[in-house]
Amino acid sequence: MADLKSTFINVYSVLKSELLHDSACEFSDDSRQWIERMLDYNVPGGKLNRGLSVIDSYRLLKGQELSEEEIFLACALGWCIEWLQAYFLVLDDIMDDSHTRRGQPCWFRVQKVGTIAVNDGVLLRNHIPRILRKHFRGKPYYVDLLDLFNEVEFQTASGQMIDLITTLEGEKDLSKYTLSLHRRIVQYKTAYYSFYLPVGCALLMAGENLDNHTDVKNILVEMGTYFQVQDDYLDCFGDPETIGKIGTDIEDFKCSWVVVKALELSNEKQKKVLYENYGKTNPENVAKVKALYKELNLQHVFAEYESQSYEKLVNSIEAHPSQPVQAVLKSFLAKIYKRQK
Amino acid sequence: MADLKSTFINVYSVLKSELLHDSACEFSDDSRQWIERMLDYNVPGGKLNRGLSVIDSYRLLKGQELSEEEIFLACALGWCIEWLQAYFLVLDDIMDDSHTRRGQPCWFRVQKVGTIAVNDGVLLRNHIPRILRKHFRGKPYYVDLLDLFNEVEFQTASGQMIDLITTLEGEKDLSKYTLSLHRRIVQYKTAYYSFYLPVGCALLMAGENLDNHTDVKNILVEMGTYFQVQDDYLDCFGDPETIGKIGTDIEDFKCSWVVVKALELSNEKQKKVLYENYGKTNPENVAKVKALYKELNLQHVFAEYESQSYEKLVNSIEAHPSQPVQAVLKSFLAKIYKRQK
Repeated sequence: MADLKSTFINVYSVLKSELLHDSACEFSDDSRQWIERMLDYNVPGGKLNRGLSVIDSYRLLKGQELSEEEIFLACALGWCIEWLQAYFLVLDDIMDDSHTRRGQPCWFRVQKVGTIAVNDGVLLRNHIPRILRKHFRGKPYYVDLLDLFNEVEFQTASGQMIDLITTLEGEKDLSKYTLSLHRRIVQYKTAYYSFYLPVGCALLMAGENLDNHTDVKNILVEMGTYFQVQDDYLDCFGDPETIGKIGTDIEDFKCSWVVVKALELSNEKQKKVLYENYGKTNPENVAKVKALYKELNLQHVFAEYESQSYEKLVNSIEAHPSQPVQAVLKSFLAKIYKRQK
Repeated sequence: MADLKSTFINVYSVLKSELLHDSACEFSDDSRQWIERMLDYNVPGGKLNRGLSVIDSYRLLKGQELSEEEIFLACALGWCIEWLQAYFLVLDDIMDDSHTRRGQPCWFRVQKVGTIAVNDGVLLRNHIPRILRKHFRGKPYYVDLLDLFNEVEFQTASGQMIDLITTLEGEKDLSKYTLSLHRRIVQYKTAYYSFYLPVGCALLMAGENLDNHTDVKNILVEMGTYFQVQDDYLDCFGDPETIGKIGTDIEDFKCSWVVVKALELSNEKQKKVLYENYGKTNPENVAKVKALYKELNLQHVFAEYESQSYEKLVNSIEAHPSQPVQAVLKSFLAKIYKRQK
C-alpha cells in the first residue's frame, strides 16, 4: 500500500512534466514556473483516496496483479480525479471566501495569485482532457472516458449551484432545508465525483459498458450520500483533534444533515429555537443550537441512520451478480463505515 | 442573412430548454430559473459572429444549400462556441474586475450573483459537452469534436494565463513587452477559439480529418492575430462612437500591439517617455503616450502592417488547393479587412 502510494506519486511527476511541455501551447519559462507551482500547491496535497481507489478498484475487477502499463494508466485516471478535485477546491475556496485548505492558505490568498486563481482553476480542469488524450486516445473506451468525466463534472457543478443558490446571502430561510434538498445537493456535489467516478474509470478500463452498470452507480451514489452525512455529523459531533478542524456548519447556515434532521424532529417550540439561532456566529447562538441537538438525541438518530444505511448498502451489494464488483463496492464501504475522521 | 440569424436564435431556445431538462440532474424550479436567467444574460447578447460563421463555413464547404437538420446541427455547434465565449467572458470580467459588458453590468455585479458567477462560468462550460452529446453522440466525428473543443479551450486558458502573469499587478515592467510575447498571447487567447474553432467545427461536419488541415489552422490563426492587432489599434486610434467604448489599454498597462510597436521603434529618449507614462490613469500621462504614438507615426505603421498582413493572407489562401476552403477563408477575411469597429 505504501508502495502503491509512492508509485502513484511518481506518476504525478510524469503527468506534470508532460503538461508543462504540451505541444498545443508554447509556454515561456515564466509560464512553466507558474503552472508547476500552481500544480504542486493544489493537486497532490490531499489524502489522494479518490485517485488511489481507481487502482484498487481496477485490480479487484481484474482479479489479478496488474502489469506496469496497467498500473500507470490506472494511476493516470486516478490523477485526473485528483485534478478535478483540485479544480473544484480552488474555485470553491474563492466562492466561499475561505482562508485555509489542507493546512495552508487557499491558493487565491497566496501573494500575487488573487483572482488569477479563477483561471488556474480553469487550467486544472483543462489538464484532464490533455492527460486523457495523451494516454487513452487509442483505447476503445476513450470516448466513454471523455463522456464520463464530462457528465460527472456537470453533475458536480450543478450540485454546487443548488448549494450556492440555497444558501444565498440575505435569504437565510430554514424552511427551504429539507431532507430531499440535502440529498440532492450531496448526491450531485459530492457523491458522483468522489464515489462513482473512480469506479466508473475502473469499469471502463476493464472493458465494461457503463450503461450496464446503473445499479453500481446507484449503490455508489448511496454510499457517497452516507459519507457526506457522516461528514455533516462529524462537523458538529466529531473530535476536532481527530477530524483536524473545528466545524462551523451551524455558524455558516449550512444545509447540513444534522439541521435538516433536527427540523424534521422538532416541535414548534424547538423549531423556533433553530430559526432564531441557526446561522449566527455568536457562541451563545451556537450553544443553543447544540443544546437542542442534544435534546433531540441526534447522536442516537445518527447511529440509527448509520446502521440502517450500512445494512441497506450491504444488502444491495450482495444482490449484485458479479463477485469482483461486490469486492470493489465492499472495499469502498469498509473504508468509510463508522469512520471518526 | 437576417433569416439565418433568426434561425440561429431559435436554436438557442431549443438548446436552452434541453439543458434545463437534462436528465443527468434533477433541478428544482429555483435552479431552473437561475440557469435560465444566467443563460439569457450571458449567452445570446453578443454579435454572434463566431457562432454564425460555423453555418456560413459549412455551407461554403458543402457548396450547396443545407438540409434543415444540417442547419440545426451547424447552429448547435455555433452556439457551443457562443457558450464557450460566454464562459470566458463571465470569468474574465471577474478577474479584470470589470464593470460593464455588452452594455449591461457584468454578471458577477448583478445583485445576488457575486462570486456565484464563478460557478456559473463553470456551468456554461459544462453545457457544451451536454449539447455535443445530445446532438452528435452518434456521428463519426463526435470524438473529434470533443477533442477540438478541449484543445481550443486549453489554448485559450493558456493564453489567458500568459496574459495574466505578464500584467501581474506590482510588476509593471515594459521591458517584458515584445512582439513575440504579444503574438503568443493573442494567438492563444483569441485566435484559436474565434477563428480556428468555427472552421474546425465546419470541417468536421463536412467529414474532414483536421490533421490534414494544419495549413487552414495556421491561416486562421494568422487572421485572428491580425484581427486582434486591429482591436489594439482601434482601442487607441478608433472612433469611440463607432467602436462603442472608450479604450483604456494605455491606462491598464495592456500588452497591446501599439505599445509593443512603439517600444520597437523608440530611441532611448522616447522609451523613457513610455516607461514613465504607460499604465497610469492620469490623463496627462495618457496624453504623453498618445503624443509619442503620433510622433512615431504609428497610424502609418499600422496601415503598412494591415496591407502587408492582407497581402500575405490572400497569398496563403490562394495557395490552398481546395476552392471551397478558399471560399471559407476569403469570407472570413472579407469580414475583417479594414474594419473600423
